[in-house]
Amino acid sequence: MSGTAWGSGLAAMSGAALQRAIGPSLPSGIETPALVVDLDVVEANARRMQAAMAAAGIALRPHAKTHKSVALARLQLDAGAHGITVGTLGEAEVMADGGIDDIFIAYPIWAVGEKAERLRALHRRPGLRVAVGIDSAAGAERLAAAVRHAGRPLEVLVEVDPRNRRTGVQPKDAGALARAARAVGLEVAGIFTHGGHAYGGPDRVAPAASDEVAALADALTGLRAEGIEPRVISAGSTPTARAAATAPVNEMRPGTYLFGDRIELALGGCPADGVAIAIAATVVSTATPGQVVIDAGAKTLTKDLPAYLQGYGELADYPGTVIERVHDYHGVVGVPDGVRAPTLGEVVRVIPNHACPVVDLQDRFVATRSGAFIGWMTVDARGRSG
Amino acid sequence: MSGTAWGSGLAAMSGAALQRAIGPSLPSGIETPALVVDLDVVEANARRMQAAMAAAGIALRPHAKTHKSVALARLQLDAGAHGITVGTLGEAEVMADGGIDDIFIAYPIWAVGEKAERLRALHRRPGLRVAVGIDSAAGAERLAAAVRHAGRPLEVLVEVDPRNRRTGVQPKDAGALARAARAVGLEVAGIFTHGGHAYGGPDRVAPAASDEVAALADALTGLRAEGIEPRVISAGSTPTARAAATAPVNEMRPGTYLFGDRIELALGGCPADGVAIAIAATVVSTATPGQVVIDAGAKTLTKDLPAYLQGYGELADYPGTVIERVHDYHGVVGVPDGVRAPTLGEVVRVIPNHACPVVDLQDRFVATRSGAFIGWMTVDARGRSG
Repeated sequence: MSGTAWGSGLAAMSGAALQRAIGPSLPSGIETPALVVDLDVVEANARRMQAAMAAAGIALRPHAKTHKSVALARLQLDAGAHGITVGTLGEAEVMADGGIDDIFIAYPIWAVGEKAERLRALHRRPGLRVAVGIDSAAGAERLAAAVRHAGRPLEVLVEVDPRNRRTGVQPKDAGALARAARAVGLEVAGIFTHGGHAYGGPDRVAPAASDEVAALADALTGLRAEGIEPRVISAGSTPTARAAATAPVNEMRPGTYLFGDRIELALGGCPADGVAIAIAATVVSTATPGQVVIDAGAKTLTKDLPAYLQGYGELADYPGTVIERVHDYHGVVGVPDGVRAPTLGEVVRVIPNHACPVVDLQDRFVATRSGAFIGWMTVDARGRSG
Repeated sequence: MSGTAWGSGLAAMSGAALQRAIGPSLPSGIETPALVVDLDVVEANARRMQAAMAAAGIALRPHAKTHKSVALARLQLDAGAHGITVGTLGEAEVMADGGIDDIFIAYPIWAVGEKAERLRALHRRPGLRVAVGIDSAAGAERLAAAVRHAGRPLEVLVEVDPRNRRTGVQPKDAGALARAARAVGLEVAGIFTHGGHAYGGPDRVAPAASDEVAALADALTGLRAEGIEPRVISAGSTPTARAAATAPVNEMRPGTYLFGDRIELALGGCPADGVAIAIAATVVSTATPGQVVIDAGAKTLTKDLPAYLQGYGELADYPGTVIERVHDYHGVVGVPDGVRAPTLGEVVRVIPNHACPVVDLQDRFVATRSGAFIGWMTVDARGRSG
């Protein structure tokens, strides 16, 4: 399956058809601004990614930082995921409190002080498997010190940089770090990478997926040269998930696929019918010609704006309009001459650029099915950035 | 007093001296990422703005969206402010719950459904004065309908656009809107404007302040032509506050001055010793040459990045370094050749670009005095964006 197959499908649709296709329908009477999540689409997204990974013989460990919701993590596990990924100790604690029992913290935690105590407490929880990322011997030493005398070693995965230039050692150095981790008493469960440079643009997705696979293959060689056979060989981001689903990879950790957003639409990480979320917003001002102002601003939509998108979000029902500027509580929607625009007081659907930070601004969201209100669901790990 | 006086002072300092001067000292053993607020600097900032406004004969009504904290609103009132400004009904509710009794919601609320009920409840609270912004006759009609039969009229202020192109009617149309508001039973308490275009860059501050004063003067003429004499003539943003403190303005509504940030430093809205906040972050990775990675990313620092700043924040103690990229939980700090950099595990002080959205990501913050931990304080209205 090609990583850009969905992108090609999108390109074949007319702009107007695409705009009408995306985003959940809104229940009536919704108070704005509000995050709306269509659970039917969420389930379809979960099933689709699970099926794609199952077909490739790859285990799925979704990143929960996108939804931060125990109920949605459970939905992913019920669909066949074999565990979840998180980015912080705080997210791990919330998920563990919610009964999730297999959690990988894909982050090089520096375990001193309170963080060491929190990691120790998590590691000691009965029935919970927790693993942590490492990208330095010094960091590994702190992890080992934090869980000393716990009765069982902490599992770690060596992070490898696939030319993303964020975290992770170079593939050639993975074996040495694995050896150092083992030497301080950690259990080296695997290696992992994140092809975040796929988010540089549509032309970066396929190379990033190749980089992920190559980095893991090289790191695997390095670990084997040290006599270490990793169980887990983990790649992943939503846009690269399909293209990177090939040997030696045996686990994938995409996150945003569950919700979809404008970035994933642009990168082919999400099909047109895979956008499960929208911000419901009200037009509060039409006083200035050529624009309307909605009550979703930077504190709702964020200022996430990659170079390949126009605007901080778009109105799903008004083709050709984007949110040109955001102030804290105002979103200014440009309305070019001749383009249909919403009227004062109208509630509109905004497709956000990037689901993850938008969700992290909400304590709860409106869950819908087929446009009908189902209930409020909580963003359990909101704000748990450490 | 000139709006750029502080900016000139900053320019006269060497880069290194400036970097060492800004931001609160960190208490030891702080768990990261965390927002740290120096209450000594906060109080000095409150006194300084209060004194500047008092000297100009202008009432101060600070915008609480910056801190969202009842305790800090109280601090501003104790320093001499005659009320507070908020941007949403939710902020107003939180502040009213905290005992603040004079609140202006500087936003054109579209009062239907739950919003109408919430506004009605707020308007009926004994001992609370609440006023709301309007920029359309249709919006004014909804406000009037929401508080009908309350026994006293709702106070409104007509918003006027000072060439900011966000919300607000043109100055020439203010009189007609005031007449329409009065006709539906609202009490027209005043006119207000916000020179947000000052945030376009250092060269935009003085023109924006002039635009604010001119827009209010023109609107005042319009209201008087309708036989309406507004009590409140309100301008304000932090960078324009001093330059706009002139007749006919009689009230100012700055917000960010209390905390300071990199944007205010750049615009002259804050002196070098006026930055009261920092994000404490830990260096978690030094695996890639030429950079270090900290545990404050987009979910802590946001992606607020005006064209006149470099990076998503800077390390106060490492001149020449800025945060070049942010992922959800990673901040990538560029370390040019020959520049001193923090080491793995070090806790650093990050000065954020824009205080308001950064604070809105935190449930609480570390309060300090002279670098010593005083206690945790709550961001009471966090996430109350509607």
